[in-house]
Amino acid sequence: MRPWLALRYLHIDFEEVRIPLFTPGYKEKLRAYSSAGLVPIYRDDDITIWESLAILEYLAEQNPRLWPKEPHHRAVARAVSAEMHAGFQALREQLPLNCRARRRRIPITANVGKNVSRIVEIWAQCRNLRRSEGPWLFGEFCIADAMYAPVALRFATYGVTVGSTAQEYIDTVMKDPYIARWMAEAANEDESIDAYEHIGNTG
Amino acid sequence: MRPWLALRYLHIDFEEVRIPLFTPGYKEKLRAYSSAGLVPIYRDDDITIWESLAILEYLAEQNPRLWPKEPHHRAVARAVSAEMHAGFQALREQLPLNCRARRRRIPITANVGKNVSRIVEIWAQCRNLRRSEGPWLFGEFCIADAMYAPVALRFATYGVTVGSTAQEYIDTVMKDPYIARWMAEAANEDESIDAYEHIGNTG
Repeated sequence: MRPWLALRYLHIDFEEVRIPLFTPGYKEKLRAYSSAGLVPIYRDDDITIWESLAILEYLAEQNPRLWPKEPHHRAVARAVSAEMHAGFQALREQLPLNCRARRRRIPITANVGKNVSRIVEIWAQCRNLRRSEGPWLFGEFCIADAMYAPVALRFATYGVTVGSTAQEYIDTVMKDPYIARWMAEAANEDESIDAYEHIGNTG
Repeated sequence: MRPWLALRYLHIDFEEVRIPLFTPGYKEKLRAYSSAGLVPIYRDDDITIWESLAILEYLAEQNPRLWPKEPHHRAVARAVSAEMHAGFQALREQLPLNCRARRRRIPITANVGKNVSRIVEIWAQCRNLRRSEGPWLFGEFCIADAMYAPVALRFATYGVTVGSTAQEYIDTVMKDPYIARWMAEAANEDESIDAYEHIGNTG
């Protein structure tokens, strides 16, 4: 979902190849695209890139507006994106992305609670920097939003209770037309979209 | 270790603040530098950055030679760096970095074995691209080397048996004067350097 969202925001045309995960032969199909066996994979002519964050940096080289323009803000955006890329395992495991569910309450374990607190703290730190310039983490949409949008969806799905600053951000994500389109497409798929989120944690 | 190594390669002067982890009050000390509570943390005037990968991208903006110059190679370097940033949990947990040990053989579990195979595959893929230009992953030293040097040290520490291409790379890492200096400094510390590697997985 993450690179998908950035590509939509950049109005870059692309063809999607869906590989239903955890079905017979899926590993071989994946490996035909990339030896890492991870999704998503982005192909641009003869360049094949895997790992969301690497794909997003590749797109940002050609479209610098994918990162905030101030070096200080860009550094924070990269730090929170890297933190999401590698962390928050409890949240990923216990609150899987489900595009059909809404406000499905489940008990929040201590580890998920810590993940939620840290994410709320990150959103507040980012939004404090350029709040007047727009409703996204750094005002305008950037890679940090591509990284955190799936988390906002999870919070909405599971009715995670947060303060008003965090809820504002969740509302921004839920109202976004590209995200709505992605959710609708995902809900119509036979295969579970969870898989895209879980495998390799690069969703 | 990762940003440390890149800073040394760039001949950038910096002051080190060591925070012994898992000692009384260490969390508060860490949080005084960054709310993420993760090490390493890099400070440049009023800019505070956490997460190795974000620090390294920040340094690369000012010093583009930290990434390979060809867009295709740079994309691969970013992908393998992101893969290391988020993955290889079994290896991190079961083969902790130990600066005093050498060829300490331990049984390799199936999951560590898979990590080792994938890492060896990554090194071969990278080294095939610019082998004639130097002994590092993309010829000259780059961020991908900063990310994989600690792994090469682990392979050496635990006497992991690999093919000649991978062994060549391990030898390059083991012979590097900056890495030798880092190892010597770490071996003289009271606190275990393992902690730097484990907390937040951003070593």
